[in-house]
Amino acid sequence: MPTSRLEAFSDGVIAIAITLLVLEIHVPETGGPDSLGHQLADQWPSYAAYLVSFVTIGIIWVNHHAMVSRLRKTNHTVLILNLFLLMSIAILPFTTDLVAEYLRESDGQHLAAAIYSGSLLLMGLAFYAMQRYTLDGEGGDLLGVELSEGDRRAIKQRNALGLVPYAVATAVAPLSAYLTLAICAAVAAFYASPVTRAGLD
Amino acid sequence: MPTSRLEAFSDGVIAIAITLLVLEIHVPETGGPDSLGHQLADQWPSYAAYLVSFVTIGIIWVNHHAMVSRLRKTNHTVLILNLFLLMSIAILPFTTDLVAEYLRESDGQHLAAAIYSGSLLLMGLAFYAMQRYTLDGEGGDLLGVELSEGDRRAIKQRNALGLVPYAVATAVAPLSAYLTLAICAAVAAFYASPVTRAGLD
Amino acid sequence: MPTSRLEAFSDGVIAIAITLLVLEIHVPETGGPDSLGHQLADQWPSYAAYLVSFVTIGIIWVNHHAMVSRLRKTNHTVLILNLFLLMSIAILPFTTDLVAEYLRESDGQHLAAAIYSGSLLLMGLAFYAMQRYTLDGEGGDLLGVELSEGDRRAIKQRNALGLVPYAVATAVAPLSAYLTLAICAAVAAFYASPVTRAGLD
Amino acid sequence: MPTSRLEAFSDGVIAIAITLLVLEIHVPETGGPDSLGHQLADQWPSYAAYLVSFVTIGIIWVNHHAMVSRLRKTNHTVLILNLFLLMSIAILPFTTDLVAEYLRESDGQHLAAAIYSGSLLLMGLAFYAMQRYTLDGEGGDLLGVELSEGDRRAIKQRNALGLVPYAVATAVAPLSAYLTLAICAAVAAFYASPVTRAGLD
Repeated sequence: MPTSRLEAFSDGVIAIAITLLVLEIHVPETGGPDSLGHQLADQWPSYAAYLVSFVTIGIIWVNHHAMVSRLRKTNHTVLILNLFLLMSIAILPFTTDLVAEYLRESDGQHLAAAIYSGSLLLMGLAFYAMQRYTLDGEGGDLLGVELSEGDRRAIKQRNALGLVPYAVATAVAPLSAYLTLAICAAVAAFYASPVTRAGLD
Repeated sequence: MPTSRLEAFSDGVIAIAITLLVLEIHVPETGGPDSLGHQLADQWPSYAAYLVSFVTIGIIWVNHHAMVSRLRKTNHTVLILNLFLLMSIAILPFTTDLVAEYLRESDGQHLAAAIYSGSLLLMGLAFYAMQRYTLDGEGGDLLGVELSEGDRRAIKQRNALGLVPYAVATAVAPLSAYLTLAICAAVAAFYASPVTRAGLD
Repeated sequence: MPTSRLEAFSDGVIAIAITLLVLEIHVPETGGPDSLGHQLADQWPSYAAYLVSFVTIGIIWVNHHAMVSRLRKTNHTVLILNLFLLMSIAILPFTTDLVAEYLRESDGQHLAAAIYSGSLLLMGLAFYAMQRYTLDGEGGDLLGVELSEGDRRAIKQRNALGLVPYAVATAVAPLSAYLTLAICAAVAAFYASPVTRAGLD
Repeated sequence: MPTSRLEAFSDGVIAIAITLLVLEIHVPETGGPDSLGHQLADQWPSYAAYLVSFVTIGIIWVNHHAMVSRLRKTNHTVLILNLFLLMSIAILPFTTDLVAEYLRESDGQHLAAAIYSGSLLLMGLAFYAMQRYTLDGEGGDLLGVELSEGDRRAIKQRNALGLVPYAVATAVAPLSAYLTLAICAAVAAFYASPVTRAGLD
């Protein structure tokens, strides 16, 4: 299968997942005792989680293309690794909704936050696994560009390093769900910032 | 990243957002005291908001391609600006639903209308920011077409001018939610009209 | 704008609308007095409406590409006519759900059926309007293929003829909602049948 | 119609269906008597069904492209067969939700499991019908690659063989819904496994 088909399908899944995130933001029911303004303000975790997930998926999309554009062909393993990466992205509308609903619940906030950052960690791991394989698979014969051993190592190190904040965010979830979300937000801001853009793959 | 990938991903997000709008139109529950005809007529704000948002997103899609087709390459800033533009489009199913639900609620109609036109204003601002940057970024070196200083200024002015009605619509929301929606509808009709098509970017 | 972009965006919207139809088929609630088999059998109108809408959208997609593939360029009017055609397709998940929910309700079945076939009629009209314009617009200068006056007339007549059954289906809705749905189903079967495939644009 | 358009539309529908699966995983309601952890653990059938359906759709996508990439043109029959294949994929979000909700319900679990594996069997049959037709249709003249009689027979046999586990899974549904799901999971694992990748079309 040519890489163009892999890209088109991946683009589709990522575009749908990022757009479905909006279903997590609910219109408050009319006729309740609270004013609309109060109700909208009250669901700020939905907006925060939406923002973090949207930017994070957008960044993974950019990185996905950087990874795939280096390939000159695919094989069965690439397709399956890509499928698992897409799955880890496609479940984010669920984990985003989960953390938004439970961020302030005394029962469940820590678990919900851990699942949220854990799903981002999973996405990072799936990305890292695919990155490693595309760089080294079939003795590097999948690549369509020249990369020195040092280049490859640098890419892999950068990807591995990107896992650390999500691991930390998951580890601190039992302490504070807010801190977990803040770390995930900081990662998104880091990659989206014009200052630190070098961080992109 | 070549602009073709940027276009494909943006097309996907915009196509999904415009199609998800339909989820905002609800099938009335069966077995209620009111006739189906009465219930369907009663939710006319849903149809009005749907129509306005659908046409508006369709027009922004046309303009998005006009903007991107002028580029010969992208950079990190373009990608991030585009991501924020897509986010401002992707939240429209929510703000459209919000204004449809609250247009006639004495509590909340003004705020809902302000948020709706505000989200269109935000979309216009995100578009304007990306337009400015693509015209001037890297000293104009992102462009693949020849544009005189006057051409660039004219495009930016036209975009900036397009923000005015949304700003006005948001400003009048405290007076009348209906007026706000009417202004947004008029903008959509203006750009969709065969007479005024020159207004398109 | 090149026709390839028009096609890609239209493909996206049509693919999403056709896939969103599934949200209309509901999983029966667990724990009710009726068996699952009974409940699933009871919602047969959902399956019938799904089938009719899915095949109909599939056929309009085929015809859309036949229409667009004849073009060598687009203009503002084509884009706007296409946008209204896409809107008429994008609302089908709503009208399909409506007729499925109300097909057997003594209150509302006739109106729901009329709205359903009416939405298909609207889609046909939007298609016909775009077809007419692409064939004759700018003095036929939008076309990239040679078509005799007779060819053009034949295409337009075929399209106009395709509107008749939907008009009839809408007209008989006050008599029988089932008959309306049956006519729409027959149209879908007619175009999908290998015997009558000449009916495709 | 060129095969590229068929692929693009099919990619769109398959990408949307696979991503919509996530809507089947529900965020537990806040404020209930059970802890979030308990509630999340309690809905493990949702995760299991999600995983099986996601991988299965991913594999059918790979096989779909292998099938279409052999074609040099399409005809009306190919388009209609493809439409029914897409429909069988597009209903999977419904049947996946169904089996997830009813897997442990004493009333309905057998029927729900039979419908789930039956929908996968239907998908396999639709794939097989299209495969057969594309290999033999118009006297093999649809093909753009050279295939010996033996090659064609081998492909068809492999596809027919792939139907067997789904038929078995459906047949055992009256005995055990869990066994049905386990067989479907085993098929997905078989095709996704690096060891057995030869099983892919």
